[in-house]
Amino acid sequence: MSKQVTLAAAEAVVAAARKHAEKIGVPSCIAVVDSGANLVAFVRMDRAWLGSIDIAQDKAFTSRAFDMTTKELARMSQPGEPLFGITASNEGRVVIFAGGVPVKVDGVVIGAVGASGGRPDQDHEVAEAGAAAFSSGGQTVRRSSASPANAEVARPGRVD
Amino acid sequence: MSKQVTLAAAEAVVAAARKHAEKIGVPSCIAVVDSGANLVAFVRMDRAWLGSIDIAQDKAFTSRAFDMTTKELARMSQPGEPLFGITASNEGRVVIFAGGVPVKVDGVVIGAVGASGGRPDQDHEVAEAGAAAFSSGGQTVRRSSASPANAEVARPGRVD
Amino acid sequence: MSKQVTLAAAEAVVAAARKHAEKIGVPSCIAVVDSGANLVAFVRMDRAWLGSIDIAQDKAFTSRAFDMTTKELARMSQPGEPLFGITASNEGRVVIFAGGVPVKVDGVVIGAVGASGGRPDQDHEVAEAGAAAFSSGGQTVRRSSASPANAEVARPGRVD
Amino acid sequence: MSKQVTLAAAEAVVAAARKHAEKIGVPSCIAVVDSGANLVAFVRMDRAWLGSIDIAQDKAFTSRAFDMTTKELARMSQPGEPLFGITASNEGRVVIFAGGVPVKVDGVVIGAVGASGGRPDQDHEVAEAGAAAFSSGGQTVRRSSASPANAEVARPGRVD
Repeated sequence: MSKQVTLAAAEAVVAAARKHAEKIGVPSCIAVVDSGANLVAFVRMDRAWLGSIDIAQDKAFTSRAFDMTTKELARMSQPGEPLFGITASNEGRVVIFAGGVPVKVDGVVIGAVGASGGRPDQDHEVAEAGAAAFSSGGQTVRRSSASPANAEVARPGRVD
Repeated sequence: MSKQVTLAAAEAVVAAARKHAEKIGVPSCIAVVDSGANLVAFVRMDRAWLGSIDIAQDKAFTSRAFDMTTKELARMSQPGEPLFGITASNEGRVVIFAGGVPVKVDGVVIGAVGASGGRPDQDHEVAEAGAAAFSSGGQTVRRSSASPANAEVARPGRVD
Repeated sequence: MSKQVTLAAAEAVVAAARKHAEKIGVPSCIAVVDSGANLVAFVRMDRAWLGSIDIAQDKAFTSRAFDMTTKELARMSQPGEPLFGITASNEGRVVIFAGGVPVKVDGVVIGAVGASGGRPDQDHEVAEAGAAAFSSGGQTVRRSSASPANAEVARPGRVD
Repeated sequence: MSKQVTLAAAEAVVAAARKHAEKIGVPSCIAVVDSGANLVAFVRMDRAWLGSIDIAQDKAFTSRAFDMTTKELARMSQPGEPLFGITASNEGRVVIFAGGVPVKVDGVVIGAVGASGGRPDQDHEVAEAGAAAFSSGGQTVRRSSASPANAEVARPGRVD
């Protein structure tokens, strides 16, 4: 199984997160980053907040930057806690409320997903649904990359 | 008729642009913005340049910000030309080479698509393929926007 | 005696800090700045957080900018304390948790070291180990700074 | 051979680049980034320009972001050329003069090195010397990671 967040894999993560967001009725922005914390895929569901465009991406960035959920980071960043003030770092891209979840393979963080659009606990659920799809989804990812929509993934020799 | 770039519409644009990128063998980043120049959907194809993540989004922003292709803007922004220096504006988000194309309905710009990954002329082709899918795809878009605001959320199978 | 953080001196600081980080098993980013608060040397140990790249540098900056440890600054920057809000200054480069330690010669701050990768108390230990190497390492540093300005360049074998 | 820019590998790149910089007498800043364009190692040689701290890092970023030397990019970014204006993208981190060189393994770009301190052609030489050390240097890298200075690399189990 690939240890990279390919576009096919990122789309599977987005699809699973989006499905959960629809289920709980929370129009969300959903972003997926790879191991370098660089964006791979993003969607803004209709009626999601404009302010969430940035936050979803920054939650994904933060989860990969510190290899933990932003929910965990939230606890450590309260006044008096060890990481209070961390929001100022990394050019303001650190988000300290729930909705960012690492994507792992065999326990190794290889990317992350960020969701924004509802309450932090809802965003966390949405992001977790996305991350779970990846972690459990070697099969799905492989199959999906053989499908027409991801043809360039199945035929890497074609591109460039 | 609603004139909005819904997520369903943006995904149709991305799919068409991506298909063209695959056809000409150029791994690309593709971004779609709405009438507010705000991001709706983004994908980075495998092996696309990391530097294109930003540029694809900024091309889409630029095309909507000035309601023209970035190819047209390029001409006006050379040394000695009327808009030389415009790149310093809008917090560095103005791109002055080809690859950004407005998305129109009945001649009215309602969003834009940006592509980055190849030569500017290739990027322009990719973005145009995306924009064309929207302009010609009125049926799908009209129906979807006539239905309850987030109909595409309830019927994810409809698009692509 | 010259009171400058040469590259040779910075590398000695990094080496000592890194040795301590290895000893306590914390993959860290380590940064050293000079009297102008400008970066001299930086390393990211394998598996250190990506988010620490920025924080280690900003901790070093902060320690030199205010001539105190970021641990001390943390106390003064809590809600209700005199420097609450200082994180907004200096373009977001002020870090208010432990891990930044000034480098001194004869009680005068001439630079700083920042470490990031573990808990703030661990980062403080790592940075202190680095700073201590400098303070105690006067011999090497003095000799090197007494020689022609870029002597360490001509004799790379001398240091570390 | 590893396809990652570990710290041991980055240090070998820095050492080779620095050696060349010393040889041609150009005090330089030298930076190495990994496949995600994130910083791994940085040194500022004594008497190098302060302005080079940023430029060396941005050259490395640029070379990885576009998988080419900044010397090549320079040609394409002149007035009237296809990428004129690219400097405004990526938050001002794109450098369009020589001194950034990709680091490759088997033809695949897995990182980059940036050098700044002299004329662009000198910076290019320095960066190339660094990149060459990596590309040719599987042996060196392996050996070097077995040496004491890079002990944590040889014993990854120790850390975290």
